[in-house]
Amino acid sequence: MRHDGKEAVAAELYRALAHGDRERLDRILHPAFEGRTTEGLPLGLGGTYTGSDAMRRGFWGRIARSYDARAEPAGFRHLEDGDLLVTGRYVGEARQGGGKLDAEFSHLLSFEGERITGLVQLTDSARWSEALGTGRALSTVDFRVTDGLAELRLARPHIRNALDQAMADDLYEVAQRLAADPDVRAVLITGDGPAFTVGGDIAVFADSAGAQLPGTLRRMISPYHEALRLLSRLDAPIVCAAHGAVAGGGLGLLYCADIVLAAEGTKFASGFTSLGLSGDGGNSWFLPRLVGPRRAAEFYFEQRVLDAHEAAEWGLATRVLPAGELADEALAVARRLADGPTRAHGEIRRLLRETWSVTLAEQLAAEADAISRTARTSDASAAVAAFIDKRKPTFQGR
Amino acid sequence: MRHDGKEAVAAELYRALAHGDRERLDRILHPAFEGRTTEGLPLGLGGTYTGSDAMRRGFWGRIARSYDARAEPAGFRHLEDGDLLVTGRYVGEARQGGGKLDAEFSHLLSFEGERITGLVQLTDSARWSEALGTGRALSTVDFRVTDGLAELRLARPHIRNALDQAMADDLYEVAQRLAADPDVRAVLITGDGPAFTVGGDIAVFADSAGAQLPGTLRRMISPYHEALRLLSRLDAPIVCAAHGAVAGGGLGLLYCADIVLAAEGTKFASGFTSLGLSGDGGNSWFLPRLVGPRRAAEFYFEQRVLDAHEAAEWGLATRVLPAGELADEALAVARRLADGPTRAHGEIRRLLRETWSVTLAEQLAAEADAISRTARTSDASAAVAAFIDKRKPTFQGR
Amino acid sequence: MRHDGKEAVAAELYRALAHGDRERLDRILHPAFEGRTTEGLPLGLGGTYTGSDAMRRGFWGRIARSYDARAEPAGFRHLEDGDLLVTGRYVGEARQGGGKLDAEFSHLLSFEGERITGLVQLTDSARWSEALGTGRALSTVDFRVTDGLAELRLARPHIRNALDQAMADDLYEVAQRLAADPDVRAVLITGDGPAFTVGGDIAVFADSAGAQLPGTLRRMISPYHEALRLLSRLDAPIVCAAHGAVAGGGLGLLYCADIVLAAEGTKFASGFTSLGLSGDGGNSWFLPRLVGPRRAAEFYFEQRVLDAHEAAEWGLATRVLPAGELADEALAVARRLADGPTRAHGEIRRLLRETWSVTLAEQLAAEADAISRTARTSDASAAVAAFIDKRKPTFQGR
Repeated sequence: MRHDGKEAVAAELYRALAHGDRERLDRILHPAFEGRTTEGLPLGLGGTYTGSDAMRRGFWGRIARSYDARAEPAGFRHLEDGDLLVTGRYVGEARQGGGKLDAEFSHLLSFEGERITGLVQLTDSARWSEALGTGRALSTVDFRVTDGLAELRLARPHIRNALDQAMADDLYEVAQRLAADPDVRAVLITGDGPAFTVGGDIAVFADSAGAQLPGTLRRMISPYHEALRLLSRLDAPIVCAAHGAVAGGGLGLLYCADIVLAAEGTKFASGFTSLGLSGDGGNSWFLPRLVGPRRAAEFYFEQRVLDAHEAAEWGLATRVLPAGELADEALAVARRLADGPTRAHGEIRRLLRETWSVTLAEQLAAEADAISRTARTSDASAAVAAFIDKRKPTFQGR
Repeated sequence: MRHDGKEAVAAELYRALAHGDRERLDRILHPAFEGRTTEGLPLGLGGTYTGSDAMRRGFWGRIARSYDARAEPAGFRHLEDGDLLVTGRYVGEARQGGGKLDAEFSHLLSFEGERITGLVQLTDSARWSEALGTGRALSTVDFRVTDGLAELRLARPHIRNALDQAMADDLYEVAQRLAADPDVRAVLITGDGPAFTVGGDIAVFADSAGAQLPGTLRRMISPYHEALRLLSRLDAPIVCAAHGAVAGGGLGLLYCADIVLAAEGTKFASGFTSLGLSGDGGNSWFLPRLVGPRRAAEFYFEQRVLDAHEAAEWGLATRVLPAGELADEALAVARRLADGPTRAHGEIRRLLRETWSVTLAEQLAAEADAISRTARTSDASAAVAAFIDKRKPTFQGR
Repeated sequence: MRHDGKEAVAAELYRALAHGDRERLDRILHPAFEGRTTEGLPLGLGGTYTGSDAMRRGFWGRIARSYDARAEPAGFRHLEDGDLLVTGRYVGEARQGGGKLDAEFSHLLSFEGERITGLVQLTDSARWSEALGTGRALSTVDFRVTDGLAELRLARPHIRNALDQAMADDLYEVAQRLAADPDVRAVLITGDGPAFTVGGDIAVFADSAGAQLPGTLRRMISPYHEALRLLSRLDAPIVCAAHGAVAGGGLGLLYCADIVLAAEGTKFASGFTSLGLSGDGGNSWFLPRLVGPRRAAEFYFEQRVLDAHEAAEWGLATRVLPAGELADEALAVARRLADGPTRAHGEIRRLLRETWSVTLAEQLAAEADAISRTARTSDASAAVAAFIDKRKPTFQGR
């Protein structure tokens, strides 16, 4: 197809989207269409959509439910490999709250014949989150920030903090607030009632008969996984106080934490294969790294249940405490971390998170860069001075 | 070179291959030729061949020994970067058994001047395996499948199941059958006689004086490694019952397993450096992940020998059993897994295998995709219903 | 820009470099310029430079201080994607010692408009090291090689072998000698005085008030990290004898070792966050792999101090010895390794180092390649013969 032909098809795409014209979209998009959207988008919108239907329903449809906005293309550039790069802005507002949306985008469009086979979207995802506002009421968790210490408490004690759609959404909301709040210097995660969390609420699964179960799970897991991803990327260290039981996908909250204190008597279990499911919550990323492939397999395939001491020995928990001391000690540890060098903590968290995909040489370079950045902080200057004076340092988190 | 010039050279290549014309091949192929062939091809044919000699002898020559077949090009397409994409079919038959071969291919050819510098082959490798037939008699292992449970027994007890060429070929054959059999829901691997396996048969090495040793090792290791790779990719979980000794490359069979039961008194050792060799069997991939770099180095460099309890503590074995209970318990564990949710088991095995090369965000997305797939299985529907009714679920493996 | 336009800009670049013409460089280089230089270059010169200033000061400026040399371009080739490939030679001499420099280079230049946006340099870095000479006197470490065994002794006992600029430079010098000496078959690293090393010398940090600290750290860490990288890539196995204390970045020397012997009473600690710093020495690469993410976080965030037995249990040390036996046993282990099959040791070290970034299938192929290479060594031939004769093998390291 000639250059101007591609631009015409692209223009047609934006018109079809503006009018929610499904038939026109079906004409323009190739059956084998694949869309990749910006990872950081709120509502779990970021990801890969295979097939034009998936893109229309799973992405554009869900955007239309939450935003009244349109994509306004401004420039078209033809790439050597035949792709077309469209740049422009999304303009509009959130349907709830009416927060304004004005965000740049670039769309990389691929073609086959007269049809679009691929769209790679990059947009300023923070703007999308801002438009949604952050004042959404929380119904299943308690959340507060005091003197730089954020406390997140799972608060569905009557069902042992089983994860349902509301809790998944609330955790995602809280994770977004934490990610956006530069004053948070440590996070403490606890659970109300007899157990930290027993994982996904199986009553919800049971309500989703047969064919609906995949959709129910995906809607719940999208915001929950996004919450875990955001928590794992905070500068602020995370402390988890586990008690009673931690199971299934709920283990993900432990995995995102730096320090996990477990009360005597706590049980840890996967439980997925009893339900014929493969599991979620980052278990398959963290377990092999925490306990090695042999024990990870035992935990999954034989559904081994660990007590608190075994969990500490394996590396799921940092240490075990008498149940009566858990709350105080967890708060003390979190407070200590909140009074620490937050910039250094953030760099260490990043280094430990990214280490798995890089070579030693690359990580040595990353460490050199990170230590240079922390050496510029006033916390480092103060600490070196305190060391020379044989005083304990006081950190401001900057 | 012009487009029609490249097609002429390509056509010449196919004629030279059809006639086994070595001189003509030498003229057409650039000295720095590199070939990449389809990974899944049988006989360990898949891989990278550096140099025209390696390609001619190691790939086309070995094909010619096992197949009477020719590549019939049908289409030629010129790519923007100057490469030529040839599509067509391989047509012919296997020399042993006469199984028909009819498999599509695409060849991506690169050129420098009048010569071909690279060939990337993609073909329907299952067709190649089918042509060889799967009825090859096994001489060094026993193999049977009963009610979804595959049992593989190393059967050279007189030499403690040392791995020689025949056993490597047999293991590869069995691995291919397992990979192709959708009814297999668990695998149990055991060894006959005093030891599970002592690793590579050093008597074979000794017969290969000096210059022949590299070739002897490579011929043996190619099918053995391919067997390990296929085993590691099965949906069906694998149980290993280890006794007596497990050493050297033979440890690879343990590494591919999800559950490893070890009899009291079993010894585990590497042994490679005593022979001046660097080792095989996936030791260098699995050991660092199972036991960490410090112990991996000790196991290799100090050739530390582990007893069964140390092996369990390190993570090579799942647990230790009295020798008299090993066979029954291993069978019971394997039977239990064979009665489990096979699709979920397969997804978990894949997630645990692929976790090492991806970021947390990527693995969270992979988990969400996998759990959606398993949520669609009838095993998941049945299990959720059983959970609500407080019954034990029954799984059909689908 | 047309082809001859690009060549003109490139030629201008080489003239500007030859004359140290900063203004002209600023005109030629795009503000978003990025340079990637050859990893193996001495003085920590290899790496990525973001921005034209970083490249000018951090790379060309530092070259000019150590070398009186110029880049002489000889050939220009235009690539399909618009880049320009320049090949030629660097010719000149080292400012200290006057060692001659004559090294090939290729420069891959990218353009935007009339300006250069990127330079990827590949040069024969060994020639650059040779020009500097290797006879530099060592002031903070003792180093000698006897019968294939290299002994490196940290020798600032009065300050417990704290790492300062001189020691970082000395370690880098020694690492280069080791990397260049094919006769070294094992390395033993020890520390003189009461402690192996307490890590970075905080007195040095204190002298670098505020704004200077990042620069001071970077100058010290560059050669130290480069030393660690080179040590980790040696064929020769490394033994570390740790006593007293090993802390902070100094732990890097342990991490590069294959066997770590620890005296009773040795303390292991990170200590970084007390100074508001994120840390160095490869801690963030090795710790998660050695001890898992849970314990790595505890070691960093709670600054847990390990005794020798805990260090062995965690996998920082191979085993613990009475203090009085440390020196003799470490020497005996190193001697044994120095008398081993050095080529096989080198292949194993490489396999264990590179295993983290590859898939199982790739590592199986790498193992097959490596064992074929070692099978060709005279050490392997001798060892197989000795095995058959039931003799102990004697290895020559080749």
